[in-house]
Amino acid sequence: MMTNRICILLSLLAAGRLPAADDVLTRVAAHAERFGEVSRQIWETPELGFHEDKSSALLEQELRANGFEVRAGVAGMPTAFTASFGSGSPVLVVMGEFDALPGLSQKDVPQLLPVVPGAPGHGCGHNLLGSASALAAVAIKEEMQARGIKGTIRYYGTPAEEGGGGKIYMIHAGLFRDVDAVLAWHPADANRVNLGSLLANNGGRFRFYGVASHAAAAPERGRSALDGLMIMLNAVEFLREHVPQETRIHYVITNGGAAANIVPAFAEANLIARHPDAQVLDGIWERIMNCARAGALASGTRMEFVQGTNYANVLPNDALEEVLARAMQKAGGYEYTPAERSFAQQLQKTLGFEVKTPGPEHIETSKSETVSSASSDAGDVSWVVPTAQFTAATFVPGVSAHTWQAAACAGSSIGRKGMVVAARTLALAGVDILEHPAEVTAAREAYTKRLAGRKWTTHVPVDGKPPLDYAMK
Amino acid sequence: MMTNRICILLSLLAAGRLPAADDVLTRVAAHAERFGEVSRQIWETPELGFHEDKSSALLEQELRANGFEVRAGVAGMPTAFTASFGSGSPVLVVMGEFDALPGLSQKDVPQLLPVVPGAPGHGCGHNLLGSASALAAVAIKEEMQARGIKGTIRYYGTPAEEGGGGKIYMIHAGLFRDVDAVLAWHPADANRVNLGSLLANNGGRFRFYGVASHAAAAPERGRSALDGLMIMLNAVEFLREHVPQETRIHYVITNGGAAANIVPAFAEANLIARHPDAQVLDGIWERIMNCARAGALASGTRMEFVQGTNYANVLPNDALEEVLARAMQKAGGYEYTPAERSFAQQLQKTLGFEVKTPGPEHIETSKSETVSSASSDAGDVSWVVPTAQFTAATFVPGVSAHTWQAAACAGSSIGRKGMVVAARTLALAGVDILEHPAEVTAAREAYTKRLAGRKWTTHVPVDGKPPLDYAMK
Amino acid sequence: MMTNRICILLSLLAAGRLPAADDVLTRVAAHAERFGEVSRQIWETPELGFHEDKSSALLEQELRANGFEVRAGVAGMPTAFTASFGSGSPVLVVMGEFDALPGLSQKDVPQLLPVVPGAPGHGCGHNLLGSASALAAVAIKEEMQARGIKGTIRYYGTPAEEGGGGKIYMIHAGLFRDVDAVLAWHPADANRVNLGSLLANNGGRFRFYGVASHAAAAPERGRSALDGLMIMLNAVEFLREHVPQETRIHYVITNGGAAANIVPAFAEANLIARHPDAQVLDGIWERIMNCARAGALASGTRMEFVQGTNYANVLPNDALEEVLARAMQKAGGYEYTPAERSFAQQLQKTLGFEVKTPGPEHIETSKSETVSSASSDAGDVSWVVPTAQFTAATFVPGVSAHTWQAAACAGSSIGRKGMVVAARTLALAGVDILEHPAEVTAAREAYTKRLAGRKWTTHVPVDGKPPLDYAMK
Amino acid sequence: MMTNRICILLSLLAAGRLPAADDVLTRVAAHAERFGEVSRQIWETPELGFHEDKSSALLEQELRANGFEVRAGVAGMPTAFTASFGSGSPVLVVMGEFDALPGLSQKDVPQLLPVVPGAPGHGCGHNLLGSASALAAVAIKEEMQARGIKGTIRYYGTPAEEGGGGKIYMIHAGLFRDVDAVLAWHPADANRVNLGSLLANNGGRFRFYGVASHAAAAPERGRSALDGLMIMLNAVEFLREHVPQETRIHYVITNGGAAANIVPAFAEANLIARHPDAQVLDGIWERIMNCARAGALASGTRMEFVQGTNYANVLPNDALEEVLARAMQKAGGYEYTPAERSFAQQLQKTLGFEVKTPGPEHIETSKSETVSSASSDAGDVSWVVPTAQFTAATFVPGVSAHTWQAAACAGSSIGRKGMVVAARTLALAGVDILEHPAEVTAAREAYTKRLAGRKWTTHVPVDGKPPLDYAMK
Repeated sequence: MMTNRICILLSLLAAGRLPAADDVLTRVAAHAERFGEVSRQIWETPELGFHEDKSSALLEQELRANGFEVRAGVAGMPTAFTASFGSGSPVLVVMGEFDALPGLSQKDVPQLLPVVPGAPGHGCGHNLLGSASALAAVAIKEEMQARGIKGTIRYYGTPAEEGGGGKIYMIHAGLFRDVDAVLAWHPADANRVNLGSLLANNGGRFRFYGVASHAAAAPERGRSALDGLMIMLNAVEFLREHVPQETRIHYVITNGGAAANIVPAFAEANLIARHPDAQVLDGIWERIMNCARAGALASGTRMEFVQGTNYANVLPNDALEEVLARAMQKAGGYEYTPAERSFAQQLQKTLGFEVKTPGPEHIETSKSETVSSASSDAGDVSWVVPTAQFTAATFVPGVSAHTWQAAACAGSSIGRKGMVVAARTLALAGVDILEHPAEVTAAREAYTKRLAGRKWTTHVPVDGKPPLDYAMK
Repeated sequence: MMTNRICILLSLLAAGRLPAADDVLTRVAAHAERFGEVSRQIWETPELGFHEDKSSALLEQELRANGFEVRAGVAGMPTAFTASFGSGSPVLVVMGEFDALPGLSQKDVPQLLPVVPGAPGHGCGHNLLGSASALAAVAIKEEMQARGIKGTIRYYGTPAEEGGGGKIYMIHAGLFRDVDAVLAWHPADANRVNLGSLLANNGGRFRFYGVASHAAAAPERGRSALDGLMIMLNAVEFLREHVPQETRIHYVITNGGAAANIVPAFAEANLIARHPDAQVLDGIWERIMNCARAGALASGTRMEFVQGTNYANVLPNDALEEVLARAMQKAGGYEYTPAERSFAQQLQKTLGFEVKTPGPEHIETSKSETVSSASSDAGDVSWVVPTAQFTAATFVPGVSAHTWQAAACAGSSIGRKGMVVAARTLALAGVDILEHPAEVTAAREAYTKRLAGRKWTTHVPVDGKPPLDYAMK
Repeated sequence: MMTNRICILLSLLAAGRLPAADDVLTRVAAHAERFGEVSRQIWETPELGFHEDKSSALLEQELRANGFEVRAGVAGMPTAFTASFGSGSPVLVVMGEFDALPGLSQKDVPQLLPVVPGAPGHGCGHNLLGSASALAAVAIKEEMQARGIKGTIRYYGTPAEEGGGGKIYMIHAGLFRDVDAVLAWHPADANRVNLGSLLANNGGRFRFYGVASHAAAAPERGRSALDGLMIMLNAVEFLREHVPQETRIHYVITNGGAAANIVPAFAEANLIARHPDAQVLDGIWERIMNCARAGALASGTRMEFVQGTNYANVLPNDALEEVLARAMQKAGGYEYTPAERSFAQQLQKTLGFEVKTPGPEHIETSKSETVSSASSDAGDVSWVVPTAQFTAATFVPGVSAHTWQAAACAGSSIGRKGMVVAARTLALAGVDILEHPAEVTAAREAYTKRLAGRKWTTHVPVDGKPPLDYAMK
Repeated sequence: MMTNRICILLSLLAAGRLPAADDVLTRVAAHAERFGEVSRQIWETPELGFHEDKSSALLEQELRANGFEVRAGVAGMPTAFTASFGSGSPVLVVMGEFDALPGLSQKDVPQLLPVVPGAPGHGCGHNLLGSASALAAVAIKEEMQARGIKGTIRYYGTPAEEGGGGKIYMIHAGLFRDVDAVLAWHPADANRVNLGSLLANNGGRFRFYGVASHAAAAPERGRSALDGLMIMLNAVEFLREHVPQETRIHYVITNGGAAANIVPAFAEANLIARHPDAQVLDGIWERIMNCARAGALASGTRMEFVQGTNYANVLPNDALEEVLARAMQKAGGYEYTPAERSFAQQLQKTLGFEVKTPGPEHIETSKSETVSSASSDAGDVSWVVPTAQFTAATFVPGVSAHTWQAAACAGSSIGRKGMVVAARTLALAGVDILEHPAEVTAAREAYTKRLAGRKWTTHVPVDGKPPLDYAMK
C-alpha cells in the first residue's frame, strides 16, 4: 500500500503539476494520501444506499478532524450529513456520494473475482466520489483560512444516489436554500468537462389487484390482475410512436401470477421512463399512468402505483462549467506506472471491444451538450441551485460504470489517481468561485437562462419519508 | 299462379285437415289464397327496415277491408301500425314483420339468381311472417264474431326487425301495456313448437377521435384514434376468458384510418355481444364499455358510442307454448307436390351438407329449451307480456334464414304452404286463449315465474327517435 | 385411536351392511383397521410426487405380507410398483395413488392449522386412495383363493398423480398391455358412480431467449424475450374466440425479465390448456404452439417449450360403471358419529357457502356424463384399457379436493370410513368382473365404442425419463 | 399574362443577374417565357402518376422542337421518356417530374378554392419541376453547340414520383448505366443547396385471408383474418422499442372485416416504414415482415404482401453539391412584385403559424446534412449514379408541399419565377460539369465514399411490371 501512495505523489510531482504558486493544489497534495486511504476503506466495506453507516461515519470524522462543523443524520436520513466551514455568502457546496451497488463485489484485480460472491461492491466508484470531494473541501477550507477568503464552504454527504434519491430529501429539507453554487464530479474513464446532461427518469411499481378463481372451473368469476397489467403494457407499446423519439420506456414483469390454474389476483411490473427533459417526461409519465388506469378499468381490477426513483435531468450551468474547464486544464491529468498500464491492458482485454477513449493524461473540455443515458439525483440539485459537474479518469479507458471492471479500478491506485485529478479540479474551481463574486452572479444568470421560467418538480413527496429500505427489497 | 293456389287448397283438403267442426280452420282456408297473394306481392317488392312503405300499406289495407280498425304510423315509425277488433280483455296480439334484407335479391328458382344483383330480398321470409299473422287475425276475428267470443284481437305490424328494433319503440310507446298475450311465429325449415330462446344481443359503433399529424414528420404530436380502438379491442380479447363461455363478442373495424402517412384522427369498430340472458349480457356490456373507455384513456383520444341493435333473449312462456303445441298438432303439416319435391331436392344440392331435418309433413313439439344463435326484438316483447313463438316449415329442410335459398323458398308455393300451417296454428291457439280465461291466467303465472323478479331493460332510450335510416347507412 | 377403529366396525355392523352371504365384504372388514392405520401413517408423512419413498414402501410391504408378488421401482420410477396375485386372464388392476400436495400441511382438526407451515399435506386424500385400493386387492385375492376364482388381481402403485404423470410412464413401459380392466376411485365429498369424465389437459413452460442490452442506452441492440412472450400471450387471447367454448387456456408469467433497465434476455410463462376431449385439445394445442412460435418470430427471439403435465380426459366405460353402480349400491354408505357430525359442521362453517351435497349415508348412481374441471393420468389409462372410476365420501359434504379442509378429513375417521366404502365397492366389483367373463367382454365392447376408432396419444415421450424432480422445482 | 412575363425579365435584368459573359443564363432567359407557359399548361391539366399523357407529350414535343432526340414510353411506362443531345462522355442527366396529386385541385388564388372539388392538383409543383429541368436542358444544349462542349446532355422524363416509382423502373431498364452525373431539383419555399437527404421508405399492403363463419353460431369454425392483422400490428408496436429511434412505422387498417356477425375472412392494412438509411431500413423491414408472418401463423390465416412504394434515402454527393452551390450563388434569387407580395401575405395568413423562412431573394448554401421526412425515387437514382439536388423558392415562404397553398403557388407567377431560379442553377452547374472532367471524377469519388462499399437494393422487382394503375386504386 505504501508503495502505491508514494507512487501517486511521485507521479504527480514528476508531472510538474503542483506549482508552488497555486497553494490550494499543494494543500490537496498534502491530504491526498489520507483521503486515498479513506476511499480504500470505504471500498473495502461497500454499503448499500441508506445503509452507508461506516462510510458516512468515516467521512464525517475526517471532516470534523479537519475543522468542519458536522451535522449528521439530516433530512430524515441517518447517513446524510452536512459539514460546514466559514460563514456568510457566497455559500459553496461540494457534494459527495458513498453508496455501493448490489452484486458487484470485486477484488482490485483485472479478472472477475468477487470478494464475496453476490455481495455489494463499488461498481460506480462512489468511494472515490465521496473521498475526493471531501479532500477538495478540506483544501479549500485551508486556502480560505490562509488567504482570508470570505464565505462558506460546505461538504454535503448525500446518501443512496443509486435509487434512493438522498439529495431530493435534502432539497425538500431546505438544505440547498442558501446555497450559491454546487460542484460535483463523477468517476469515469476520462477527464472531461462539458455541458452534458443526464436523462431525467421516473419509475416505480405498478401493482394490480384482481379476484382469484379456479382458472378451469370458474374463470368467469375471476378478474385477472395479470390481464390488467398486460392491457396496460400493451397500451404502453402503442404510446411509443407518439412520444418524442428520445424517450425511453422500459419495464419488467416482477410478478405474473401465482399458479397457472388460478386466475391471478396479483401482478406487478417495474417500469422506468426517461427523457432528456424532466418536464417533458412529466407529461409522458401522466400518459403512462393513464395506460395503467386503463388496464385496471378494462380488466375490472384495481391499480396501485408505488413511486420509485425519480431524478431530473441535469441543467448544465454554462458559467460554472467554464470555471471547471479552466480548473481542470490547470489541474491536469496523470500517467500510468508500468504496473498500472499492465493492469489497464488486462482489464481492457475483458471488454470485448476496441477502446477509443483517450488515456488519463488527456484533458477534454468542450461546450458539448451530449446527453448520457444515466440518471442521477444531482440532476434535481441542478434545478434548484447553479450546479456543475465533471468526470475524472478513475476507470481504465473503455470501462463503464456499474461493471466489475469499474469496481476493480475503484479500489486500485488508478482510481486514487483519478480521484486526485477530481480533487484538484474541485479545489481550484472552488477557490475561484469563492474569490470572485462575479462568478456567482454569472452562475445565477446562466441558471436562470437554462431554467427558462420553469420550476423544479418531483414525484417524491415533500413530506415523504425516505425509503430507507429501498435497496434491501 | 292459379295452379299453385288450387294446389294448396287441394292438398290441405286431401289431408283431411279442415274438419267442419273447427270453424276457425275453415275461415283460415277461406282467406288463404288472398293472403298468399299478399305474401307474394311483398316478396316481389322487398323493402328494407323502416322503409316498408308498400308492404305495410298493403297489410293495413287488407286488415281494414276485413273489419279491423287500423292506426298507421304508430310509435314514431311510419311503417309501424296496429289493427284492432273487439274490445275489453283478454287482449290478444298477433305480431307480423315484413322487412327485407340487403343484398339477398333472388328469384323463386333453385339456383342463385338475383332479380336485381345487390338489391334487397326476403331472405328471412318476413313476407310470409306478416301475411300469415294477418291471415290468422282475420280468421280469429270472424270466429269471435260468429261465436260471440269476448275480448280483443289485434295485429301489430312491427317494422325493421332486422336491426331497427321496431317492437322496442312500440313497447316504449305503451302499445303492449294492456295486452294479455302475444303470439308470433317465424319462417324456418321445420314445424316446431318448444321452449327455445334466442340470444340477447347488444351492439353499436365505437368511434374514436384523435389528433392527426404527419406520421413521419411529427408522430409525437398525433394522438391516434386507431391506437385507441386497438387498445380497446385488445382489452376485449382479454375479457373473453372472464365471461360465461356462452357469451359471444364479435366485431369488425369499419374505419381504420385515412392514410398510412397520417396519424389517424378517426377510427371506428362495429361490435356486437350476445348471451342467452339479457341481464347477464348487460353486466358484460358494461365491461366492454370499460374496455372502450380504457382505449380512449390510454391513447389520449375521445370515445363515442353509437347505440345499435339491442334485443333481449326470449323468455319462453310454458303455458302459451302448451297452447301452441296443441294447436300445431291439430293444425298439421303439409306435403310437397312432385314439382315442389323436385325444387326442394335441387335446392338441397346447393347446401353442401347432408340434411337431417324432417320434412314439412312432420310436427315437432317438445319442452326443449335450446337457444338459437339468432336474436330478435320479439325477445323484448316476451319480457313485458306473456309471449310465445313457433316456427313453420316455409323453407326446404336444411335451408337457413338469411340465405338466397330462403329467399327463393319465401316466394314459392312451399313458402305459402308453410305460411298456412303458421296461420292455422295461430288461429287455433288464438281462439283457445280468447275462449279460456284460465289460459290467460296461466300465461301470466308462467311469465312471472320466468321473470323471477327481474325487469326488462333496454339500451334503446325511451325518448329515443327510431333510427329510421339505420338500414341505409 | 382405538375408539375410532371400533367405532367404524360397529357402525358398519349396526348398518347391517356386512351380510354373511357376501364373503368379500367380510374380508374387507377384517383388514379395514390395518389399512386404516396405513392410510393414517401415509397421511402423517406426506411426500411429494416421485418422492413417496416411505408411502410406497409401506404399501409394498403390506401387499407382500398379504401374499402379493411385488415389483418395486418399475417404469424408471423408484416409487412406482406392481403387486400381483394369480395368473392368466382375466387380468384386473386396481390403481392406488399416494402422493401429497405442496403447502397443504394440516392437522386433523376443523380449523386451518398446519403441522408444519408450508410443508406438504394430503389435500387430495391420496393416503386414503392408495390404502383403500390395497385393502380391496387383498380382499379380492382372499376371495379368489377361497372360491377358486381364476385370473389375476394386481395392485398398481402409481406415483406422482399431481403433475408427474406416473401412470403414463407405466403405460409406456407396457404394464397395461395384458390388462383386461382397471378399477379406480377418488376421495370426494360424496359416494357417487356415473359416466362423468375429467378434462384433458396439456401444459408446460414457454421459454423465450433474447438479447440483453441497456434499455436506455441501446434498446435497438436488444431483442426482448419478454416481447416474445407478450406477443405470444396476446395471440393466445385472440385464439379464445375461435376454439370450442368448453376450452380453457390459462397462464402465469413466471419470469418477466431481470431488471427494468435491461432488455430482458429471458422470459417464461407456464401455460395450461384443457378440453373435455384430448384429441380436440391436441388440435388446439398445436395452435397455441403456433402462437408461441409467432412470438419468437415477431420479436427476433428463440422459443423453447418444456413439456409439463399432459393428461387425457377419461373415456367412461358404460359396462364397468354398471358393475360399479351395482357394487356401490350393495356396499352402502355410512353414518357420522356425534363427534364426526360436530367435526363436519365446524368444517362446513369455514366454507363460506351453503352446502347442498347429500351426506355419506347416501349413494348416488346415474348415467350422467358431467365433466369435472379436474384432470388425472387415470384418464390416459382409460384410453388404453377399459377403466372405471367412482368417488367415495371421504371428505365432509361441500369440501373440495386441494384444500386444507380436505387434508383435515383425510387424516380423520371420516376419511377412513369413506375409504372403507371405496374398498367395499372395489372388492364387490372386482370379484364380479373376475367371476363373469361376460363383464370383461362387455367392458371391451364399451371401450371400443367410446374410442370410436381413435387412438391414445400423449405429448409425454415414450422414451422420456420421468421428471423425477418436477415437484421440487 | 404578358405583364407577368415582362415583369420576370425586367426583375432579373434589374437585379443584374444576367451577365453578358455567361451565355447559358442568357439562353435560359430566352426560353423562360415559353417553358413558363408549358408549366402553366401542365398545371391546368393535372394528371396522376403513370397517366401524365398530356404532360409528358407536351414536354417531349418541346424538347424535340429544340433539337433533342426523344424516346417515348421507355422502361415499360407510356409516360416515361428520354430526350438526348450530343454523344460520348461525360453524360449528364437532368431529371424532370410532372405527375399531380389526388384531391388537391386548386385555383391560383390565395384562398382554398378547387377548380374541380376532389380532382387532382399540382400540390407538389411537379409542373414546374419538369418544365424548369427541360428549360435548363435546352439552354445547356445550346451552350454546348455554341462553344463546342463535348459530351451528352439528356433530359429524363420520370413519371409517377408520388408513389409509382418511375425512376426505379428506369434504373432497372439500364437507362442510368452510362450516366456520369444526375442533377435534379424540387419546388419548395426557399432557394437552398445542401447535403440534406430524404428518408428511405418502404411500404405496401398486408392482406390476411381467413375462414368466414357465423360469429355467434360457430366462431370456433372461423379463422379470423382480422385477428391475424391485429396480432401482426400489435407485434409491430413491440418492435418500436427495438429499432433505431429515427425509424418511423405507420399504418392504417384499410379493411377490418365485412360484417360484425361474420368472422372476417379478409383484412388488410397499409403500412409504411422509413429510416434515414435504406440499408438499415431493409433490416427493419424484414422484421416487420416477420411480424406479419407471425400474425398469420398465430391466427391460422394466410398472409400476402403487395409491394407498395419503396424509395431509397438520398446519398448526397459532396462534389456535385459544391458545383450546385456555386451555381446557385451565381444564379441568384428573385423579388416579389407588389401583387406577388400581397398574394404571399394572404396565403401566409391561411397557414396558422408564424413564418420564419427567408424570402425568395435569399440563397442558402451549406454543408448541412439534415434529413427531411419526405421520400422520393430520386433517392434510388443517387445510389446508382452521382446525383445532386436542390430546392428553389417556387412556394411562398412557409408553404409546404402537398397542400392547396403549394398548388396555388405552382400555378402563379411566383412559381414560374422560382422555376427560373432552378433552371439557371441547373444550366450553370450543367455547363460546369460538362466542361470540367475533374468535376465528373470528383463526383464519382464522392459517390464511392458515401456508398462505402454498399450496393443499391430495392424491393421493386427487376422484372416487375410498373403498377400503372397504382394511383387509381
